[in-house]
Amino acid sequence: MKSHRMRFVLAPDSFKESMSAPVAVAAMKRGICAVFADAQCIAVPMADGGEGTVDALVEATGGEHVVAQVHDGLGRPVRARYGMVLEEELAIIEIASAAGFDLIAEADRDPGATSTFGVGELIIDALNRGARHFVVGLGSSATNDGGAGMLQALGARLLDRRGKDLPMGGAALSRLDRIDLSMFEPRLATAQFQIASDVTNPLLGANGASAVFGPQKGADDATVAELDLALSTWAHVITSTTGRDVAMVPGSGAAGGLGAAFLAFFNAQMHRGVDVVMSATHFADKIAGADYVFTGEGSVDAQTASGKTLLGVAEVSARHGVPVIAFAGRIGDGADVLYPLGFTALVPIVQGASDLAKALAEGPMNLERAVATTCRLLALCG
Amino acid sequence: MKSHRMRFVLAPDSFKESMSAPVAVAAMKRGICAVFADAQCIAVPMADGGEGTVDALVEATGGEHVVAQVHDGLGRPVRARYGMVLEEELAIIEIASAAGFDLIAEADRDPGATSTFGVGELIIDALNRGARHFVVGLGSSATNDGGAGMLQALGARLLDRRGKDLPMGGAALSRLDRIDLSMFEPRLATAQFQIASDVTNPLLGANGASAVFGPQKGADDATVAELDLALSTWAHVITSTTGRDVAMVPGSGAAGGLGAAFLAFFNAQMHRGVDVVMSATHFADKIAGADYVFTGEGSVDAQTASGKTLLGVAEVSARHGVPVIAFAGRIGDGADVLYPLGFTALVPIVQGASDLAKALAEGPMNLERAVATTCRLLALCG
Repeated sequence: MKSHRMRFVLAPDSFKESMSAPVAVAAMKRGICAVFADAQCIAVPMADGGEGTVDALVEATGGEHVVAQVHDGLGRPVRARYGMVLEEELAIIEIASAAGFDLIAEADRDPGATSTFGVGELIIDALNRGARHFVVGLGSSATNDGGAGMLQALGARLLDRRGKDLPMGGAALSRLDRIDLSMFEPRLATAQFQIASDVTNPLLGANGASAVFGPQKGADDATVAELDLALSTWAHVITSTTGRDVAMVPGSGAAGGLGAAFLAFFNAQMHRGVDVVMSATHFADKIAGADYVFTGEGSVDAQTASGKTLLGVAEVSARHGVPVIAFAGRIGDGADVLYPLGFTALVPIVQGASDLAKALAEGPMNLERAVATTCRLLALCG
Repeated sequence: MKSHRMRFVLAPDSFKESMSAPVAVAAMKRGICAVFADAQCIAVPMADGGEGTVDALVEATGGEHVVAQVHDGLGRPVRARYGMVLEEELAIIEIASAAGFDLIAEADRDPGATSTFGVGELIIDALNRGARHFVVGLGSSATNDGGAGMLQALGARLLDRRGKDLPMGGAALSRLDRIDLSMFEPRLATAQFQIASDVTNPLLGANGASAVFGPQKGADDATVAELDLALSTWAHVITSTTGRDVAMVPGSGAAGGLGAAFLAFFNAQMHRGVDVVMSATHFADKIAGADYVFTGEGSVDAQTASGKTLLGVAEVSARHGVPVIAFAGRIGDGADVLYPLGFTALVPIVQGASDLAKALAEGPMNLERAVATTCRLLALCG
């Protein structure tokens, strides 16, 4: 056994239906401490910008949760939770907490009418609390408004040819003539946004927001065409207003085109989710001097090689020469392709034949046991 | 990675319904070679004296399989397979290959009539091939004859008060008056028998062969009482013939009292199965200088602590300071009690949620993958 105090960085993603990333971190800690009683465990729960990003970053940064009363996609009041790290003037927002798909019952879904207004309200709330840096996770929106609603909440006026304000929703953008930014939230001029998105679709066209994500939000073929046309008007006016042409920029189509608004009107950079999360958690600093990085997620297979959270963790860990071990509820066929990409070992956590429901329910216990077993093997080293 | 050529001793038990010990050894080899291409793998498949003992020992010793035409428990011809290691003058016999429970259809089971005659025939066959040492695995017999049939096959005469030979079967022993050993196989005087049995029941009484194992062989309460009484006559005559009182010796009740016959009439020592197998395979010699011992079986749990094969492997490995890693289809709750008993790590082989049938069918692949993953962790050592 190594004579120094062992140091582990615990950076799992969520195990989808089984446990959140912070719960996975806690299970890993228990497993490690069963073998290395005095080990140092550094919790850096991971996320991809989607569900769980706020919880993971709040835990990793020692931040706090706050709640703001805003409006959902249909303009109904909703209490939305986001994260604040006061000492870093950092707010962490999942746009789904305000404009989320899951907030709207199936019968009420209407991607022509839904608005990202609530996202703008969250940003104001965070600015009021002192935030100057933002991590924004795109994903699971109910909207297709190109971020128009968010801008309206932040003081922009979207005007038709007669100078009247447009109503909410992506469909109305077909009548957009110009944007009046005279009352636009001035603090945004200096605020910095890191936009986390694994979606690389552009705003417009066959691979755009309306065509690809519209149908799952409730749009039929005619509505998709109508919404794509409205967003092309939106893109045209964005360019004439800001001088930026974001219509075909990868990621501008994320979250119903909300990506486009961030890229055009904000000091914003868009990266894949895990990179934003690793940056915000100072992941590279935390693995310096670590003996091992433990990561994990619900299922690991050949698909993991195409840009998911674990791959990001493995790449950075490998670059720093720290062995990275991934735990998963399932190690699929073909997962071996991951070994050349930086993973040291892929360890399944199930302890025996078990149906999926039982395996999901026993996830934390299985992870604890698999981590302990792995530590027993690592204890042979050195 | 260690700079010397890694040396692994592969000593799994069978994974019951999933794979035999030799198949498990082959899967382990593939897993090791995927990580340590030039590793030395020493195959010592394990067994407990029951099913698979011949196959395991033939593989571990480089012996061969032979087939003899003998008679089953009901006196019907049966081709029985056993093992021969010519250079060691060693025969390896599972008594179930001749007197086995599974050879007799349920409707035909009759523990008062079945005989171990075929076991004696196997011994003669092996003596004719040059065997002077025997490993005999007791277990899964259809018989309750105290080994009487085996002795008859070897030339003993079991006589009633009128000097007539008894018919086959345990029930007839109630009429036994004396044993005539004048024609008893003379080569047995110098042959050595290692009897492998994890059964420690005595020949007679409430914990005896008839009471404990009779019912599962088809005896009702009245038959159990009759058979126990017949075996007490058998024990009495054994003592008057040999001077040995084996009736209450632990293990004399194994295989329907066949244990008693070995202990009374042969140069025989009875040990738990794994100890006989480890001795016959020169296990302790083979682990000298090994880096790791890999063992395994279908299921590992707190019960494993009470004398099963894996515990024997772990004890000897720990005594020689070689880390021993156990792989299993299932690591049950409470298996942690095994760690103080010598195990380094208990590694489950399933790669995800899976029903039992699938897990059993995928056993060799899962074992290969779990071994490879373990080797990737061990490759971090040194």
